[in-house]
Amino acid sequence: MKPIKELKAVKWKENNHETINTAVPREAVVTLYLNDEELATLLVTPHKLKELAVGFLFSEGILKSIADLKKVLVDDKKGIIWVETERKTYLGKLIHKRFLTSGCGKGTSFLDISGIKEMKKLDSEMRVTREKISELMKAMFKQAELYKAAGGIHSSALSDGDKIIAMSEDIGRHNTFDKILGECLLGGTDTKNKILLTTGRISSEMLLKAAKTEIPVLISRSAPTNLAVEAAEKLGVTLAGYARASSVRVYANDWRII
Amino acid sequence: MKPIKELKAVKWKENNHETINTAVPREAVVTLYLNDEELATLLVTPHKLKELAVGFLFSEGILKSIADLKKVLVDDKKGIIWVETERKTYLGKLIHKRFLTSGCGKGTSFLDISGIKEMKKLDSEMRVTREKISELMKAMFKQAELYKAAGGIHSSALSDGDKIIAMSEDIGRHNTFDKILGECLLGGTDTKNKILLTTGRISSEMLLKAAKTEIPVLISRSAPTNLAVEAAEKLGVTLAGYARASSVRVYANDWRII
Repeated sequence: MKPIKELKAVKWKENNHETINTAVPREAVVTLYLNDEELATLLVTPHKLKELAVGFLFSEGILKSIADLKKVLVDDKKGIIWVETERKTYLGKLIHKRFLTSGCGKGTSFLDISGIKEMKKLDSEMRVTREKISELMKAMFKQAELYKAAGGIHSSALSDGDKIIAMSEDIGRHNTFDKILGECLLGGTDTKNKILLTTGRISSEMLLKAAKTEIPVLISRSAPTNLAVEAAEKLGVTLAGYARASSVRVYANDWRII
Repeated sequence: MKPIKELKAVKWKENNHETINTAVPREAVVTLYLNDEELATLLVTPHKLKELAVGFLFSEGILKSIADLKKVLVDDKKGIIWVETERKTYLGKLIHKRFLTSGCGKGTSFLDISGIKEMKKLDSEMRVTREKISELMKAMFKQAELYKAAGGIHSSALSDGDKIIAMSEDIGRHNTFDKILGECLLGGTDTKNKILLTTGRISSEMLLKAAKTEIPVLISRSAPTNLAVEAAEKLGVTLAGYARASSVRVYANDWRII
């Protein structure tokens, strides 16, 4: 299944209109099965689905090690991803879990309850120049084939500090990151001491995903939220936004930008 | 709680950097209680939370009529919205429901399973000019106070075809629409024969939300997905994207654009 869909649209320019051939991102409904049980249904761009499945299971804490992965079968026509693992004891876990316990009146800071207190601060000594950030963002856009063809798609890329080493596109911000993570896990690439670039807004969830995989530098074309900034400070992640051709804003741990 | 957070960032421009005062959108964790039971936890921009709660309950099919609403209490410091309704029989409903039934090998078209077949085609005779669309988009941006102050925030607005009659901002695309819907329900405004404008991508879920509330025209600054286009065609919704100062692309039911 192609990740974009070619179709016709009526293009208005001032008071004139004409029918044009164009393309839109494809949105596919994909059901993920783990060891014969239905686990989750995802809305995704059907591209690098094997990577998505592996990264998603890892992000959600279900798959702990790539050595535990036995088989991944993707049928994108039927919208099914079938994963088999060595250990069969993951089930019963609800993916769309509520992360607040019941009870009115408790403090409800996301950072108190998301397990952040148990996470250790990253100690990566990595540095990156402002120029290199702009260069990498440019390189990511150059490789964003689906975006260039259809628009409306987020990109994420992983860099070793020199060049892009993994790249993904998807209608969902989170999916792009899961695809990158899956690609790294399947290819044996360590995410430590790497830079994650993305077009999407950085929310607390995105920041925690990066921190959990020990990525010390997170760069967005868009803005971070306040919770992402607070989490980045606590976890030692360098967080930057509004990355452009000659500028960038650094919201946390700016010492890694030189 | 302010919907944006003022903070300092280090701004790099070429090879120079300075510390600036800036702002980012606030991301709040809000737990929604319905008749004493915890229903869902949402990540939202803390602004118009009463509207959000009402719109969300309506969008999810839990609240069927505004007459059924008894009380809405918002405590944004504690991150709690407390809703009481006349009927108490809604509970046990899982919000983050999976919408595919189990079973490998079944067709998995979202449009087959989302209840679209039971939905009737909109018969609104509403028309809107290309010029008016550009004018309304401009008016929406003018009112997007949070976006202008902090960036990284989606806007949605409802128009009667002449001017903006409801406006919302949130880090989540879906939340903006729920806030608009809640505002209409609380204010007694009918969403029929209205135009919904948004900065966000139009996915199938957004399109179905509009169609369920009988909004005949949906305009985005961004792109639609293929499923949104297909659903718009079937349901008689006019779907346009890439709305700019002098241009727009129409993907479905272009006869309403004149």
